[in-house]
Amino acid sequence: MKALVYDNELKLDKNYPNPTVKDNEVLIKTSMVGICNTDYEITQGYMGYKGVIGHEFVGVVCEVGKNVDKNLLNKRVVGEINCACNDCSWCHQGLQRHCPNRSTLGIWQKDGCFSEYFTLPKENVIEISDNIDDTTATFTEPLAAAYEILEQVHIKPDAKVAILGDGKLGLCISLVFSALNINYIHIGKHEEKLAISKNLGAKTMLLSEIKEEDKKSFDVVVEATGSTGGFETSASLVKPRGTLVLKSTIVAREGLNLASIVVDEVNIVGSRCGQFKPILRLLEKGKIDVKPLVSAVYGVDEFEKAFEENSKRGSLKVLVKF
Amino acid sequence: MKALVYDNELKLDKNYPNPTVKDNEVLIKTSMVGICNTDYEITQGYMGYKGVIGHEFVGVVCEVGKNVDKNLLNKRVVGEINCACNDCSWCHQGLQRHCPNRSTLGIWQKDGCFSEYFTLPKENVIEISDNIDDTTATFTEPLAAAYEILEQVHIKPDAKVAILGDGKLGLCISLVFSALNINYIHIGKHEEKLAISKNLGAKTMLLSEIKEEDKKSFDVVVEATGSTGGFETSASLVKPRGTLVLKSTIVAREGLNLASIVVDEVNIVGSRCGQFKPILRLLEKGKIDVKPLVSAVYGVDEFEKAFEENSKRGSLKVLVKF
Repeated sequence: MKALVYDNELKLDKNYPNPTVKDNEVLIKTSMVGICNTDYEITQGYMGYKGVIGHEFVGVVCEVGKNVDKNLLNKRVVGEINCACNDCSWCHQGLQRHCPNRSTLGIWQKDGCFSEYFTLPKENVIEISDNIDDTTATFTEPLAAAYEILEQVHIKPDAKVAILGDGKLGLCISLVFSALNINYIHIGKHEEKLAISKNLGAKTMLLSEIKEEDKKSFDVVVEATGSTGGFETSASLVKPRGTLVLKSTIVAREGLNLASIVVDEVNIVGSRCGQFKPILRLLEKGKIDVKPLVSAVYGVDEFEKAFEENSKRGSLKVLVKF
Repeated sequence: MKALVYDNELKLDKNYPNPTVKDNEVLIKTSMVGICNTDYEITQGYMGYKGVIGHEFVGVVCEVGKNVDKNLLNKRVVGEINCACNDCSWCHQGLQRHCPNRSTLGIWQKDGCFSEYFTLPKENVIEISDNIDDTTATFTEPLAAAYEILEQVHIKPDAKVAILGDGKLGLCISLVFSALNINYIHIGKHEEKLAISKNLGAKTMLLSEIKEEDKKSFDVVVEATGSTGGFETSASLVKPRGTLVLKSTIVAREGLNLASIVVDEVNIVGSRCGQFKPILRLLEKGKIDVKPLVSAVYGVDEFEKAFEENSKRGSLKVLVKF
């Protein structure tokens, strides 16, 4: 089968061996895959991962292993990306995303979805409604990661909230916050990207427009720029005793100065993957329109163009059809 | 009067002008002062502060300004170190410690207590019981800073807690945690310092004894080493979704790698000064014995010896008598 494999370089392998489905697993025929910044980071050495990349997908179940409900066959599905042991204290708490024995689709010890076929444990797979088209369904994973903020932080109904960063991460957060009626302002560098939030009815502001009175004025600031400068700006915007949500491992790897965090007793909340069910309820009801975030759709044979498009300035989500 | 003044160098000025007491202020005659690491840091340029240093004290009120209850005269007092405007939204919330217009005794825009006399706003001053001797009273401020952790973090009755660092900060936290029956282990590099915690009935462990199974096993880790290595160890000990309390601005200034914080969705809580009333209730009941933390007591004329002693390896709290 065709598979996009990273092994020191990223290459389309046209004869990658088909995966075999094990007990308690399903085999999925890929319909559409989204390119995430993490995919790009893997090509820069992130996690030391080698194998098929990709973790944002929608597909159709084409084979089921032993102990799997046969009704799943031919169903359109999305899937959570952390494959847990289901046998540790984390799994027993429902926190499979933190299972220490987990593998992660296309990121850690498990071939990803950038291939014609791939497998997932049955627990990870969720059938989706026909109301949700393939393009929208492919956004389930990044939107769930945005929704994760609400799992971790109690954002009060009239809390003053800022999202910093207008890339696809910041925009996914904006889509979710808008759908949930959160009182936020979206701050970024690009008027054309912020326009997507503006069209949702959100307040927006260019980074250059931040005023002295905006400093230390937000109850919650979500850092979604992935840059050290963005972290510093976020830290300057949050109130004493406020919450700074750190959504990006990229910026966190660089080494950040936390002096103001101690003096102002700020709460930093690291935030990663989210559950799929809450976001699927929103998508099913048509409460989120992902279309403005789609920059381009390519076929898998054009993967080089797709990754080129993904790394262009101004580009948002690039999708690949199988 | 005699005053210990920092102005590019630390010097005992024997003719520093006596402070004059303003409306709503009290004049305090200093009895005893503690040396804090922040005092040392100021001599290294922290906050760009110039003036009389010192913020840990016990003294006697010897004059009161207009609008101050005359009953305070001749009372033994301690005092909170942040002098707030009492007129902003922070002050109205009872969070004077975060007032943006605050000055801070001996740290920011207000002469400190390392002098024979100094002033404080009447709101800052708390009369203490005769049950609390001068040595114990001088520990009120650092113990309140330790108690602040409980103001910010809900530590559940059987939560697994670690304190990292066995300097005076870590030991003050240990004294408070022990008094409050918290289920903690004290981890450090010095058997003789950890012995103080051991004598309280606490579990202790040398840094070199940390095992693989200790990693990611603590609900709450308090970083009290003030070193980058200590931060990294703390981050390795905390559970996914756990809480890492950052008590030191020193380490925070160096720039820290937060990648695992995002991946494990850890909560970092910056923590600074605390309220005096809760810790005074403990001290009044004799629930905390600070004596094992006292390394030496000097007279003010011996301040150079006192600071020398303070910077010695193995030294804990150095006190200065007036």
